[in-house]
Amino acid sequence: MPHITRNGVKVYYESMGQGPAIVFLHPWSTNRFIWTFQLMHFARTHRCIAVDHRGHGQSDKPAGGYAIAEMAADVNAILDDAGVDAAILVGNSIGGMVAMQTSLDFPQRVRGNLILSSGTNISANAPPEMAEAMQNDWRGLFGGLMDAAISAKSKAERPEIGAYMEGCFRVESNFTEGVFFASAADPNGVFNWNISDRLKDIKQPTLVIAGEEDGATTVEQNRFLADNIPGAELKVYKDVGHFCQLERPRDFNADLTAFIARVGG
Amino acid sequence: MPHITRNGVKVYYESMGQGPAIVFLHPWSTNRFIWTFQLMHFARTHRCIAVDHRGHGQSDKPAGGYAIAEMAADVNAILDDAGVDAAILVGNSIGGMVAMQTSLDFPQRVRGNLILSSGTNISANAPPEMAEAMQNDWRGLFGGLMDAAISAKSKAERPEIGAYMEGCFRVESNFTEGVFFASAADPNGVFNWNISDRLKDIKQPTLVIAGEEDGATTVEQNRFLADNIPGAELKVYKDVGHFCQLERPRDFNADLTAFIARVGG
Repeated sequence: MPHITRNGVKVYYESMGQGPAIVFLHPWSTNRFIWTFQLMHFARTHRCIAVDHRGHGQSDKPAGGYAIAEMAADVNAILDDAGVDAAILVGNSIGGMVAMQTSLDFPQRVRGNLILSSGTNISANAPPEMAEAMQNDWRGLFGGLMDAAISAKSKAERPEIGAYMEGCFRVESNFTEGVFFASAADPNGVFNWNISDRLKDIKQPTLVIAGEEDGATTVEQNRFLADNIPGAELKVYKDVGHFCQLERPRDFNADLTAFIARVGG
Repeated sequence: MPHITRNGVKVYYESMGQGPAIVFLHPWSTNRFIWTFQLMHFARTHRCIAVDHRGHGQSDKPAGGYAIAEMAADVNAILDDAGVDAAILVGNSIGGMVAMQTSLDFPQRVRGNLILSSGTNISANAPPEMAEAMQNDWRGLFGGLMDAAISAKSKAERPEIGAYMEGCFRVESNFTEGVFFASAADPNGVFNWNISDRLKDIKQPTLVIAGEEDGATTVEQNRFLADNIPGAELKVYKDVGHFCQLERPRDFNADLTAFIARVGG
């Protein structure tokens, strides 16, 4: 599996298929396996590149360096390494943040963004007891967040989604306590990253997809993105939480197919 | 991602989690992503090793060398490379064949087998027109086989399973025409491999799981394995085809959890 090295940090990615490139960027605490139902399907017509963000999966887990801009610079380096001029970015949650930051910092490399269940400045309205709960039992807190992030229908019909998520943040070889706290504390990391006043500068075609039952990044947080990125569209799913690519893979894939056509293949 | 090299052929595997080892062996034409809903879940308590067989996924795709015994020797080499003395093997379809062959050729390395939808001598009763259809349009034939391999319920409720399978055998970077024909023609490859008279020599605890609607390896073919491997148990699922790990991941994971307990952790 290929990797790039930036400032001594190895970031791995996997590539399959040939054609115009699509880069898949997973949520915090997970890994590239979350795109199983997209990768082989879209690899029939596209080159699919699935990244393990720094701090996740097979990639290195340094003590710090979890600003969203660092992860965007990793994407830029991966495109260099893969010999790709420009790609469609598909990012879920922190992966969506990385896609938006890549669009700002390396605009020539981004043909369009499908932002799935993401946001900016997401901890702005977090209750004050959250920080204490995090210090006391971050895995317990995170388990509760995952529970709130999956729709009731998905929990009943697809319990394997929650089991996958639980494994992701409890398996040390995938994601560590150190990565959790370093990311959470970073002034430009997952919780504090705020590009509210720069969304207007994202010029690429953008589709935002949100789930009505997403307790991790709300419909309102996603609507804010769509309202402020010029020309962006918003699609909201019923009975879906934070993970439409696993909760409703057929519909998500149809949306991505239509978005690819809109961007021009 | 680590790999072994045997006779110039690189075979890749991925490892996650710590604890007693479980090796996951995927079906012909697919790749390690088929185990997404097992890997992170079982990695909470076990070291999960997922192989891309030679000819598949990230592994090399040589012109020949697709005897099941070659793939079993790859598993043995992977256990060496990973520093694992012995493991539970979980194999689906050709992966089950590889597990059985590993149990015969390297018995000290196998603690038990969960054989999911597999068989031996599986082309014995294939209709004579199959060979011609294969020559004329192997992808068309294989598409039909996949359609017959997924239950009606799964096709209706989880169409992403079929989309994943279609991608697997249509994406050249995952599986090639050369691999298809070299495997099919091999006298000890997927179709011709016959250990009917050696099943009695598999001494490890074995659970065979079959799907009632599996048109790729029938319940009868799976029952033959369970009837002839000493002490093996058979479990048959309604509304399931060839891919219980994707069609019914919660139940499959419960079965694997119980099997692990039976084998001793």
